[in-house]
Amino acid sequence: MGQKGAETRDRLLDATQELVETAGYFGTGLNQVIAVSGAPRGSLYFHFPGGKDQLIGESIRRAGRTIGDTLEEQAGTSPSPAEFVEGLLRHLGDRLAESGWRKGCPVATVALETAAVNDPLQEVCSEVYASWEAALRARLASRADADDLAVTVLALVEGALLLARAHRSRDPLERVGRQIRTLLD
Amino acid sequence: MGQKGAETRDRLLDATQELVETAGYFGTGLNQVIAVSGAPRGSLYFHFPGGKDQLIGESIRRAGRTIGDTLEEQAGTSPSPAEFVEGLLRHLGDRLAESGWRKGCPVATVALETAAVNDPLQEVCSEVYASWEAALRARLASRADADDLAVTVLALVEGALLLARAHRSRDPLERVGRQIRTLLD
Repeated sequence: MGQKGAETRDRLLDATQELVETAGYFGTGLNQVIAVSGAPRGSLYFHFPGGKDQLIGESIRRAGRTIGDTLEEQAGTSPSPAEFVEGLLRHLGDRLAESGWRKGCPVATVALETAAVNDPLQEVCSEVYASWEAALRARLASRADADDLAVTVLALVEGALLLARAHRSRDPLERVGRQIRTLLD
Repeated sequence: MGQKGAETRDRLLDATQELVETAGYFGTGLNQVIAVSGAPRGSLYFHFPGGKDQLIGESIRRAGRTIGDTLEEQAGTSPSPAEFVEGLLRHLGDRLAESGWRKGCPVATVALETAAVNDPLQEVCSEVYASWEAALRARLASRADADDLAVTVLALVEGALLLARAHRSRDPLERVGRQIRTLLD
């Protein structure tokens, strides 16, 4: 693929992620993806012959890798697991408030919409969550209960993001942040 | 409203809740609600003149009251906050697995789909979560940090349900259940 093709592909994925974060799988139409991306209509099926499911699946995988990289990077530079998770919650709160309560977890809406009705996308969401669990587990490896704790920390972060979007408020992220030391210290 | 009218209204709300728990707000069509409920088409706009948003809003409020009642009932009979939350996670895991990974939180999918784009439904979801937070806070009233802890417990339960649906597995609920005592005892 030439540079122009790669740019068009990226624009399509950027538009898809933006729309899906706002309104989910069923709330995102391919016409909107074309309009927001500014890409020619024909390019969508050229780059994503599998249509909507391939487009959304690749967008979720890409968002998953970006967040996975951030997790590993921040895990490496934070002095303790508690400070790592507190920093993560602050970062997510900034991102959410600045986006007008649009940008929470880029996977959660699709995960809930597809869990029971779309096997290929359910698998993509499950894989992304498993990769984040692995990144958290690595940061908690000194703990005997690292496996349980990694899933618990991810559940807390996902739940706090959900409540923050539902209330359109950073308050749930801040309240959860104040309880992190009880769990991790 | 006569008894027959009340029954039709309930059937419409039951069908709506079932469809919305499976595929969310944008994934639920009024034609499906008619088909699943078996109610006459005209009855939908007779009972819900506000259409889809009113129907889904009332379905979410009703599900919220049912779960709120369960929370208060179980809070009253469990010997400690930790046993209360552990019991809740087991109950939710049973319900989720028996439903083929459809029935997690009846509010979460709509909350995420509408947070940024539908003010009336965002308000309904926010009110339901606030009512559950109040029920949890009442059970934790002996703790100085009851406000933060109630939101943290709700975030944990919501996050664990999300991960359980995403992985189609009770495993996240069980792992979180094993960490509850660290947070609450």
